[in-house]
Amino acid sequence: MQPYELSVADAAEAIRARRLSPVELVDSVLDRIERVEPHLHAYVAVTAEQARSSARAAEREAADGTFRGPLHGIPMGLKDLIDAAGTATTASSWVRSDHRAEADSTVAARLAAAGAVLVGKTHTHEFAYGLITPQTHNAWDRDRVAGGSSGGSAVAVAAGAAGFTLGTDTGGSIRVPAALNGVVGLKPTYGLVPRHGVTALSWSLDHVGPLARTVEDAALVLPALAGHDPRDPASLVTYPADQRPPRGTDLTGVRVGVPRNYYFDHVTADVETEVRRAIDRLEDLGARLVEVEIPMTRYIRATQWGLMVPEATAYHERTLRTVPDRYTEDVRLLLEAGELLSAGDYLRAQRARTMMRQAWTRLFDEVDVIAAPTVPTVAVPAGQDTITWPDGTVESVSDAYARLSAPANLTGVPSLSVPVGHDRAGLPIGMQLLGPPLGEFELLRVGHAYEQSEPARALAPVA
Amino acid sequence: MQPYELSVADAAEAIRARRLSPVELVDSVLDRIERVEPHLHAYVAVTAEQARSSARAAEREAADGTFRGPLHGIPMGLKDLIDAAGTATTASSWVRSDHRAEADSTVAARLAAAGAVLVGKTHTHEFAYGLITPQTHNAWDRDRVAGGSSGGSAVAVAAGAAGFTLGTDTGGSIRVPAALNGVVGLKPTYGLVPRHGVTALSWSLDHVGPLARTVEDAALVLPALAGHDPRDPASLVTYPADQRPPRGTDLTGVRVGVPRNYYFDHVTADVETEVRRAIDRLEDLGARLVEVEIPMTRYIRATQWGLMVPEATAYHERTLRTVPDRYTEDVRLLLEAGELLSAGDYLRAQRARTMMRQAWTRLFDEVDVIAAPTVPTVAVPAGQDTITWPDGTVESVSDAYARLSAPANLTGVPSLSVPVGHDRAGLPIGMQLLGPPLGEFELLRVGHAYEQSEPARALAPVA
Repeated sequence: MQPYELSVADAAEAIRARRLSPVELVDSVLDRIERVEPHLHAYVAVTAEQARSSARAAEREAADGTFRGPLHGIPMGLKDLIDAAGTATTASSWVRSDHRAEADSTVAARLAAAGAVLVGKTHTHEFAYGLITPQTHNAWDRDRVAGGSSGGSAVAVAAGAAGFTLGTDTGGSIRVPAALNGVVGLKPTYGLVPRHGVTALSWSLDHVGPLARTVEDAALVLPALAGHDPRDPASLVTYPADQRPPRGTDLTGVRVGVPRNYYFDHVTADVETEVRRAIDRLEDLGARLVEVEIPMTRYIRATQWGLMVPEATAYHERTLRTVPDRYTEDVRLLLEAGELLSAGDYLRAQRARTMMRQAWTRLFDEVDVIAAPTVPTVAVPAGQDTITWPDGTVESVSDAYARLSAPANLTGVPSLSVPVGHDRAGLPIGMQLLGPPLGEFELLRVGHAYEQSEPARALAPVA
Repeated sequence: MQPYELSVADAAEAIRARRLSPVELVDSVLDRIERVEPHLHAYVAVTAEQARSSARAAEREAADGTFRGPLHGIPMGLKDLIDAAGTATTASSWVRSDHRAEADSTVAARLAAAGAVLVGKTHTHEFAYGLITPQTHNAWDRDRVAGGSSGGSAVAVAAGAAGFTLGTDTGGSIRVPAALNGVVGLKPTYGLVPRHGVTALSWSLDHVGPLARTVEDAALVLPALAGHDPRDPASLVTYPADQRPPRGTDLTGVRVGVPRNYYFDHVTADVETEVRRAIDRLEDLGARLVEVEIPMTRYIRATQWGLMVPEATAYHERTLRTVPDRYTEDVRLLLEAGELLSAGDYLRAQRARTMMRQAWTRLFDEVDVIAAPTVPTVAVPAGQDTITWPDGTVESVSDAYARLSAPANLTGVPSLSVPVGHDRAGLPIGMQLLGPPLGEFELLRVGHAYEQSEPARALAPVA
C-alpha cells in the first residue's frame, strides 16, 4: 500500500508512531497528483514547493517529539474559494485572474496550526454558483460530471490526490460531489465553522466543511475547523470540542427517521435500493426506524432560490457592473436575474425559512437522525442538462442535484453524506444523515458505525 | 398621597406589607384614568371590570399570604399592539376594527402570572409606524405631541393612569415618548423579550420593553418579561435572572462614554445643557467620562429605513391589497413605498447593519455605557411637521425623533431613557444610556444611581 492510499486516521497513526514521515506522505500524494491530474483536473493550482517545505517542518517537529494531533503532516486541498495566504483565490473564475490572498482564512489558519499541509487549491463551479464543476472530471468515469460546486475537492479525495479537502455548501455543494464521487462530505451546523476569508455565495446559506475518505477522517478534521470567530457574524459561540466517534457498530437506542415523503420521490431505482439497504443495515446494528413526515416541502425550492439569488447578486454587485464579460454565461445570467427580485420576494423567502426551521426543530423531537438519499441519481454524463423521470417530469440536472440537499441549508441542520454503494454501472451512491443543530456527533457516530459494517472502500479506479 | 401616585416599588412594598390592597390601588388608578383621560386620550380601551375582578383575586391571594412578587396587584397598561386574550388588538387602526385576540401574548401571560393587573390598552401610532401618536396628548402640555409610537403608554405612566406600561420600539418608539413625557423607557437587548403575540412592524428591529416612572420600577418589570420563547425565532436562550439595581449612588469604576460626534449634533441648547449636566452628575458619582467616536453614522438613517420599510410592507402585504382605505394616509404611503424597494436595497441595508453591529461591539471594549440625548428636542406642538435647525437645516419631526434612537435598534444594544430635567417651557428632556448586548443591569444601575441623586419626580401636572 502506498502512503497516498492511507486514510487520515491511519496516516496520523503511522506518523505519530514514526513509521511514516510527513515528507514521504506528502511526496507520495504529490506524485499521485502528477499521475491523476491529467485525467481529472481536480486542482486549480498545486502548491508542491510550499507543501514540501511544510512537510519538512512537520517532519522536524515529529523528530523533536512534537505531534500536533491527527492532522500533523496530512496533505490537504482547499476549495479555491478559501483564502490561503500567498496563493490566489480564483473561485475558478476569470473575474479573479489577478487575485492574491493577503492572509489565511480562519479555516486555513486553523488547519495549518493543526499541522495539515496544503498541497493545492481545488476547482469549484465558478464562484460556487452551480452543481457541475465543468473543469473537473468525475473520479469514477471521466466522461461524467464531478458534481459541484466542490467538485475538485471531492474528486481529489476520491482519487487519493489529497488526504482530505475542504468544500463549501450553499445548496448541497459539499454533499453532492461527495456522493457522486464516493467519498464522505459533512455540511456542519450553520455557524459552527467560521467563514472569514471564504468567498461568499449566499451568506445566510453558506457553510464550510470537510470532504474525506471515511466518516472517521471527517470527524478528525471537524474539531480543527469549528469554534467561534467574531469576524464571521453568524459564527456560533458554543461548540462541543471532541467529535471523534466511538469504535464499534452498536446503534441500540438510536431513532433513525425514514422520510415517507419528499426524499424518495423522483429518485432512481438504484439509488432507492442502495439507500434503503443502508437504512436496513442501521436497523441491523440496533437502530429503531421511525417514519417521519418532512414539513413544508413545496416551499423548499422557492425559498432556496429566493434567498440565494439576491444574496449572490448583492455580493457580485460591483464586478457584475465593471467586468460582466469575465463571468461564464450561466453564472452571469443567474447573477443578473438577482437584480429583478424585490425586497418583498426576499422577505417572503426569509419568513418561509423561519417557519421551516421551527418545523424541522419539532421533527428532531421524534428522531435522533434522518436517513435519506443525498442525490436522486448518480453522476450524469458531461453536457447532459436535464433528467427525465419515469412519470415524464423533466428536471434540470442542477435542480435534481440540489433538491435533497437544500433543506439542510435552509434550516441550518448538519448533514453528512456517506457512500453506500454503486449503481449497475459502478457509479457511487450516497446516503445523507441529517440531525438537529449541533448534532454532528450523532451523525458521525451513526455514519462511522455504518462504514465499519462495510468492507473498506477502495480509491476510485483512476489511471 | 393617593395610591395612584405610588411608584411600583413603593406600591409593591405596601401590598406586601398589607398596608395597601390591590383593590384600593386598582380603584385609585381607574378613578385617575376617568379624571385624566378626557384630557389625554392615552387609552384605546379601559378594561375596568376585568381589572377589578383581577384586583379582587390578587387581594384574596394576598389575604392568604401569597405574594407573587413586586408586580402583585400592580395596574398596568399594554400598548395596543400586544395581544391580551379576550380584548381587541386594534393597533390604533381601522384595519383591526373587528379584531379579537384569542390568546395572551407571551409578555401579557408572563405579567399576568407575575400578578400585574391589566387596566387597559394604550394608544399607538397606527401599527407603530410613526413617532407622533396623533390620538394622544402630551402629559405635560396637551397642545403638544405625545411622541410615539408608544405614546399612550408613556402618557398613561406620566399621568399616574397606570403603574407601568409596555411599549414596542423599532426606531425609538419606547424611548422617544418616554423622553417627551418625562418617564423612564427601556428598550432591552434584541431578542431578550419575546415578541410572540405582538403585532410586528419590522421584525429585525422590533423590541418590547417597559415604561415606568422610575428606573427602579423598570428594573422590577424586566425580569417578568425576559426569557426564551421558541415562538419568537429571534428569542435569546440565555438571560441573567435578577436585574434589580443596588441602592446607593456610587459609580466608582464605571466608564461612561460621551459621544464626540452624532449624538450632540442638531440638538437644542436646552437638551444639550440638561444632558451634559446629567453626565457631569454621573462623574460626580464616581464614573469616569471617556470620549467615544460613534462609528458609521452616515449610514444609520438609510440602513434603518432600508430594513424597516420592506419588512413593514411584507407584514401588511395582504391587507394593503384588500383594505387599503382603512389605513391612514401617511401609513399607507409608507407601506406602498416598501413595494418599490429591491432585494438588493434590502440586502445592502442588512450588510451595513452587520458591520455596524461589529463596530459597536468594539465600542463597548472601551466603555461600560454611553450617555447621550434620547431625542434632539422636546415635544413639538401638534401639527408641526418639521424642525429647522440654527444652521438652516430642515428635518422632519419623525426623522429628528428617530435619529438618536435608531442606532440601538440597528445594533440591538439595550438603551434606557431617563428623565433629566425640563426645558425653559417646562417640557421634559431625556438622556439615554446605551450598553453592550445583555448589559441591561449596568444601564439600570447607572440610571438608578442618577435618579437617586435627584429629587423625586412628580407626576405630570394634568387636570
